[in-house]
Amino acid sequence: MKVEKGSFTLPGEAGFEKLTLELADKWGADVIRDSDGTVLSDEITNAGYGIYSTICIIRDHNEWAKKNLDKLQQTFLMTAPKVAACDSIDIALMEDFFDEQFRVNSSNASLKYWQVYDRTTDELVDRAKWSYDECSQTVHVAGITPWHNYTVSFLAYRIWEEISMYNHTTNNWDKEHIMQIDPVYSETREYLKDWMVNWCETHPTTTVVRFTSMFYNFVWIWGSSEKNRHLYSDWASYDFTVSPKMLDDFAEKYGYELTAEDFINQGKLHVTHMPGNQKKTDWMNFINRFVIDFGKELIDIVHKYGKKAYVFYDDSWVGIEPYKPEFKEFGFDGLIKCVFSGYEARLCSGVDVETHELRLHPYLFPVGLGGAPTFMEGGNPTLDAKKYWNSVRRALLRAPIDRIGLGGYLHLVQDFPDFVDYIAKISDEFRTLKVLHKAGNPYCCKTKVGVLHYWGSLRSWTLSGHFHETYMHELIHINEALSGLPVEVSFLNFEDVKNGALEHVDVIINAGAATSAWSGGDAWKDADLVEALTKWVYEGGTFIGVNEPSAVAGYDSYFRMAHVLGVDKDIVDRVCHGQWSFEVDEEAAKAVMVKDSFVSEKQKCHLTDGKAQVLVANGNNPLLTKNAFGKGQGIYMSSFEVNNANTKMLLNLILEAGKEATDGYYLTDNPDMECAFYPESRTLVVINNSEKTQETTVKTEYGVETVTLEAFDTLIKTI
Amino acid sequence: MKVEKGSFTLPGEAGFEKLTLELADKWGADVIRDSDGTVLSDEITNAGYGIYSTICIIRDHNEWAKKNLDKLQQTFLMTAPKVAACDSIDIALMEDFFDEQFRVNSSNASLKYWQVYDRTTDELVDRAKWSYDECSQTVHVAGITPWHNYTVSFLAYRIWEEISMYNHTTNNWDKEHIMQIDPVYSETREYLKDWMVNWCETHPTTTVVRFTSMFYNFVWIWGSSEKNRHLYSDWASYDFTVSPKMLDDFAEKYGYELTAEDFINQGKLHVTHMPGNQKKTDWMNFINRFVIDFGKELIDIVHKYGKKAYVFYDDSWVGIEPYKPEFKEFGFDGLIKCVFSGYEARLCSGVDVETHELRLHPYLFPVGLGGAPTFMEGGNPTLDAKKYWNSVRRALLRAPIDRIGLGGYLHLVQDFPDFVDYIAKISDEFRTLKVLHKAGNPYCCKTKVGVLHYWGSLRSWTLSGHFHETYMHELIHINEALSGLPVEVSFLNFEDVKNGALEHVDVIINAGAATSAWSGGDAWKDADLVEALTKWVYEGGTFIGVNEPSAVAGYDSYFRMAHVLGVDKDIVDRVCHGQWSFEVDEEAAKAVMVKDSFVSEKQKCHLTDGKAQVLVANGNNPLLTKNAFGKGQGIYMSSFEVNNANTKMLLNLILEAGKEATDGYYLTDNPDMECAFYPESRTLVVINNSEKTQETTVKTEYGVETVTLEAFDTLIKTI
Repeated sequence: MKVEKGSFTLPGEAGFEKLTLELADKWGADVIRDSDGTVLSDEITNAGYGIYSTICIIRDHNEWAKKNLDKLQQTFLMTAPKVAACDSIDIALMEDFFDEQFRVNSSNASLKYWQVYDRTTDELVDRAKWSYDECSQTVHVAGITPWHNYTVSFLAYRIWEEISMYNHTTNNWDKEHIMQIDPVYSETREYLKDWMVNWCETHPTTTVVRFTSMFYNFVWIWGSSEKNRHLYSDWASYDFTVSPKMLDDFAEKYGYELTAEDFINQGKLHVTHMPGNQKKTDWMNFINRFVIDFGKELIDIVHKYGKKAYVFYDDSWVGIEPYKPEFKEFGFDGLIKCVFSGYEARLCSGVDVETHELRLHPYLFPVGLGGAPTFMEGGNPTLDAKKYWNSVRRALLRAPIDRIGLGGYLHLVQDFPDFVDYIAKISDEFRTLKVLHKAGNPYCCKTKVGVLHYWGSLRSWTLSGHFHETYMHELIHINEALSGLPVEVSFLNFEDVKNGALEHVDVIINAGAATSAWSGGDAWKDADLVEALTKWVYEGGTFIGVNEPSAVAGYDSYFRMAHVLGVDKDIVDRVCHGQWSFEVDEEAAKAVMVKDSFVSEKQKCHLTDGKAQVLVANGNNPLLTKNAFGKGQGIYMSSFEVNNANTKMLLNLILEAGKEATDGYYLTDNPDMECAFYPESRTLVVINNSEKTQETTVKTEYGVETVTLEAFDTLIKTI
Repeated sequence: MKVEKGSFTLPGEAGFEKLTLELADKWGADVIRDSDGTVLSDEITNAGYGIYSTICIIRDHNEWAKKNLDKLQQTFLMTAPKVAACDSIDIALMEDFFDEQFRVNSSNASLKYWQVYDRTTDELVDRAKWSYDECSQTVHVAGITPWHNYTVSFLAYRIWEEISMYNHTTNNWDKEHIMQIDPVYSETREYLKDWMVNWCETHPTTTVVRFTSMFYNFVWIWGSSEKNRHLYSDWASYDFTVSPKMLDDFAEKYGYELTAEDFINQGKLHVTHMPGNQKKTDWMNFINRFVIDFGKELIDIVHKYGKKAYVFYDDSWVGIEPYKPEFKEFGFDGLIKCVFSGYEARLCSGVDVETHELRLHPYLFPVGLGGAPTFMEGGNPTLDAKKYWNSVRRALLRAPIDRIGLGGYLHLVQDFPDFVDYIAKISDEFRTLKVLHKAGNPYCCKTKVGVLHYWGSLRSWTLSGHFHETYMHELIHINEALSGLPVEVSFLNFEDVKNGALEHVDVIINAGAATSAWSGGDAWKDADLVEALTKWVYEGGTFIGVNEPSAVAGYDSYFRMAHVLGVDKDIVDRVCHGQWSFEVDEEAAKAVMVKDSFVSEKQKCHLTDGKAQVLVANGNNPLLTKNAFGKGQGIYMSSFEVNNANTKMLLNLILEAGKEATDGYYLTDNPDMECAFYPESRTLVVINNSEKTQETTVKTEYGVETVTLEAFDTLIKTI
C-alpha cells in the first residue's frame, strides 16, 4: 500500500534552522509551527512548508488592557464561611484568594450582583444589612443572627491570564503578567478584529492560524495560601465567563436574571462532575452563542486572508463546545487536541470538522507532567513517547485522525537520537493507519454500546480534563477502555433515553458515584426514565452499572435499577435487613475474566433477591454480578479500573451481552494485545499494549494468524 | 469493710438439689430461680431462699390461642418489589416469608389497611385497581403502568412466637409451636388476668415474678429462603405491635390514621438506627401507654399476692421503655438485664427502679453465642466468664448494681470446678463494689460528657440490641468506652440541645453515619441546633464528631459543624476543589494517643481552612483532628473502635477538653488498666483489663500507688 509522507506538524525553532529542516524531512512533516516560547525564522517559513502560527486571542494585549482595566475578564468568588460571634461581622473579601490573580470589582454594575448569604439557613441576607468598604476591601454585615455562618459572593477581575500564570509560576518566569481581555464589550471586539486583521497582514507566510483557543478559560481559582494554592479547577465549567455586562445581556435575552448564587452554588461552584440544571444550560447556550458569533467574525478575517483556522481544544476552550451541532457555525477548518490517552484521540476524531490533529506527548520540554525530567538528564523521552503512543494508538485503530504533531523546543531532541528515530517510526505507522481508515471502516462487533450520563453527547468521551485529573471517576476508566475496543460507542443523556435512543444500542453503561453527573443524581427520580430502561432490558438490553449506578435517595431501592441489577447498595436504612448468602459462580467468572482482571471493592452491596450470579465478591460483598431480567440482563461492577486485563473483561462482558462469541473473528486471545481488521484493504493490525514481548492468535476469515510482537510494537499485515 | 453474702440469683435445677444448695452456699446466693427448660423441686423452693419464677405472659397459652386465632399478634409485611411486564400483575403475598412464622390476615378489618404501591413513582395504587384472591394468597393489580415496580403491604398473624421459634430451630426441638396472643383485645386481657391470678395462687413459694418481658417482641421477620432466613431484625422497633384494632384505637385517640406505609416505609421499616418522625413517636407513646396500663394490672395482681415483680429487659420488651419517666407507673420492683458489655450494665443501672440485676454470661448452656462450645468438651467457660466480667466490671466501678445472677442448666457446671471457683470470686468482688457504692459515689472527673443523637435519653447507652449486632455503628464503641470511664455521661436529643441542655455538659459527642439516628440526619437542617452548638463551643465547649457527624446534604458544608470541626467530608461536589496540605502534629498526637491506639480510615475528609491540628492521617486524609474555635474546640475522628488503648485515647481527649490533666489523680498510667476511687471508704479499686500481667502507678491524694495485677484481676485496697 502506498503511504505518502506528510500529515505531521513539526515545532520549528529559529536558530536551529538546519535541525528543523532535517527533522521535517525525517519525520515527514508537511507543516512547521511555532510554540509558546519559540519563533520561526524566515529560513524556515520560506522552506516550502505549511506554517502554523499559534495565537491566544484574549491575551498578549497588555498595552490595551492597561488602558481598559474595566474590560478584563472576571469571575464570581465566594469568601470562606465565617461565623458571626455577635450580630455583626466583617468579611475581608480577598483573604482566601491569590491577589496576583484577582482584583475586586466594586463598580456599581458589579455590586448589583454581589450577595451575602447566611449559610446556616442558606438564606440571602437583605441588601440593606451590608455595606462594602473599598479601602479595607471588607464587607460589613450588621443586624444578623449570631453564631451563623456568613459568606460574601462578589465579582473580581482576573488580572493574570491563568495559563501564563501557571507557566510563569512553575518555571519561575520573571516578566510582566499577561492580562486577559473580555470580548463581551464592543470596544474589545473592535480592538480584537483590528488586531486580527493586522496580524494576518503581518503574517503572510502563515497558512494555518491556530487559536488557543477562543475567549474563556476553564475555571482555575488560586488561593492565597501556598498550602492550598489551587482552590478550584474544572476544565468544563463556565464560571470564568461572567461579568455584569454578560449577566445583563443574558437577562435581556432569556427574560430572567441569574444571580451570584447560580454560579457560586454554596461555594461548590458547578463542577462538571455534578448534574447541571436549566439555568446552567441556558447560560452555557448563551455563552456558546456569543463565542460562536464573535469567534466567527475572527475566523472570517483569517479566511479572508486565505489562511485556515484551527482551534486548539484546551485552555480557553470554554463556550466552544465541539460536540454541539452549532460548532459547525464557527467555520473552523481543523481541531487540534493534545492527547495523553486514547479517549482524547476519540474526542478529537468525533468532532464534525475537516481536519483532526493530535498533539502528541511528550512535549519537547526539559520537564514533563508533575515535574519529572523528560528532555534532560534522567529523562527517557523515548520510553515516555512509547507509553503515550501505546495509550493513543489503540484509539487510532478504531477512529480516523488526519494529522499528528509535536510541540515545544525542537533543539532539545538533539541529545536523544532514539527519540528522533521513534517519532519517525510512529509517524509512518500513523500515516499507514490513516490510509487504512480512508479505504473503509475497520471491522466492528455488532454489539453497540451507549454510555449514559447527565451530559450525554456534549461530553462524549471526556469528563472534564485529562485522565490524571479525573481518575477518581470510574467513567474515565470505562471511556479509556472503550476508546480502543472494536465496538460502536455513543454517549446518551437521560432525555435521549426517553426519546427513543435505546433503540440504537445493545448495552447501556451507567458509571459513577451517587449524585454525580456520571451516575445521574436526581435524573433518576424520573419514573419515565426507569420505565424506558426497564422495558428495554426486559426486551433484551444489557444495563451495566458501575459504582453507584442509577442511585438516588428517597425510593425503596437506592439503585433505581436495582430490579434489573439484582444488587443494591447498603445504606443505613438497610442495616437491620438480612443479606442473601451466595456462592461465587466460577464458571460465569471464567467466561469473562482473564488473568489479572479484577474488580476492587468500592461499594458495600447486597443481592436484592438472591438470584444474581456473583462473579467476584469480597466476603459477602458482591463486586461483579450478572442478573437475568426478561430477555436482557443487568451487570453490576463495584468499580472499574482501566488496564489491559480489565479492558478485555469489559469487552467480554459487552460481547456476551450482544450474544457474540468472546473468541470470534478479529479478537486477540492475549489481553495484552489488541487488533483491528480493515476489510477493504484486507489488512490486519496487531498491537502489543505491554512492556513485554507478547504472542497472540487471531481468528480471521482467512485463517488463524499467530503474531509475536516486541514491547509496544505494531504489526501491519495484509492477509 | 464488712461484705455480706447475698445479692446473687442462682439457677436451680430439680434433680440436682444437692448441687443447687451447695452452689447457693458457695456463691452466696439469696435467691434461686428457674430457667427456660428447668424447674425447681420442693426441696429447693423450701430451702429458705427467695424464689424467682420466669413467666412470658404472651406465650404458653396455645390452648386458648387455638380457640382465638384472630387474637394472635400481627405485623405488616411488604412483598418484594416486582416489575409489571404489562398493565397488570399478580403478587403472591407469602413468597418471600417463612410460612411457619406468618399467616395472612385477610379479614375485612385487616384488608382496610392493606396497600399496593407503585414503587417506581412511590405512589399508592388506587384501591379499585386491586383485588385479593384468598385461595392463591395473591393480589391481582390491573390497569397499572407497565415496567414499574409494585409491592403489596399486608397484615399477617405471627403464628410462632419468635424467641421459641429461634430456640426451636437452633436446637432442633420437635414440639408444638408456641403462639403469642395479643392483649389488645379485652378478651385476651381478661384471660391473662385470670391466668395471672391462677398462676400466683399455684406458685406460693415464688417471691419474685420475672416477666420476660411484657407483650410485644422486638421485630424479627424470617424469610422463606434458607439463603436469607433473617429478613429483618431490630431490637427496638415497634412493627410487631400493630393490629387492625390497635390501629383503629390509635386513630380514635390521636385523631389521625396511620397507614401500612407508616410502618413499611418503602420496605425499609423503621430501623432504630434511622431518625424517627412524629408519627412514629405518637405510635410509640400510644403503645407505651397501652403496655403500661395493662402491664400495671398484671403487676398489681402479683403485688396483691405479696410477690415482687421484676422485668427482664430483652425479648418482648417493646413498649416498656425503661428510660421514659412513665416507666415508674408499671410499679416494677426490679429490672434484670442480661449483659455482654459494659454499656449494658450502665443501661441497667440507669433505670429508675428499686432493684437492678445483671444476668451474667456465659449462660449455663452447652453452647454459647454463635454456636461455640461453652459447658462441653472444647469449651472454656472460665475464660469466657473472665472476658465477660472484664467487659462488665469497669462499668460496675462507675455505677451501682444491686444484684447479679446466672441462668441455664446448673448441672452443667459440675465438670468445671474452675468456673465454680471463679464465680465465687467475682460474686464476692461484686458484693464488695456494691458496698463501696453504697457508701458514696466514686471519684469522677469534672468534665461532663453528653452523647447527642436523635433518640437522646430514650436510648441511653444502647443503640438497639447487643454489641455484636450493632458493632458497625461507631456509637456503640463510644458508649462501651464511656461505660467504664470516670466521667459523667448523659444522653441528649436535638430538642434537649435547643432547650438548654448544653449548660450541663463540657463535651458533646456526635458519632455515626450520615442519615443515621446517631449522626442525626435531617435534624441538622435546623439552624437553631447549629446555632446553639456553635455558641456553646465558642464559649468553651468541645464538640467531638465521629465518622459523619452533623452530616446532611443541601448546605455549603456536608458536616453542619464543619466550621467547628475544621474538617468536612469530600463528596462529589468538592471533587474539583483543592485540598489543604498539612503536617501531622506529633506533639499534639503524643498528648492523647497511647501505644496501640489508632484511628482507622472510615471517611475521606479535608481540612476546611487549613487550621485544624492533624493528629492522625492517612496520606492527605485527616483521621483525627483538633480545631480551636473560640474558647472551645472541635475534634474529628474518622472512626472509633473500642479497645483498651482507644478507650484511654478517648479519656485523654475528654480530659484535655475539660482542661484536666491526663495524668491527674486516680488515673492509671497503663492503658490496659483502670481504677476507681471511693472517697467515703478511701478505697482504691484497680483492674487489669488485659490477658497479661500488668503494672500501673496511680497518683492519689495520699501518695502514689504502684499496682501489679494478673490477667483480668482486681485489686481492692483501702489507702
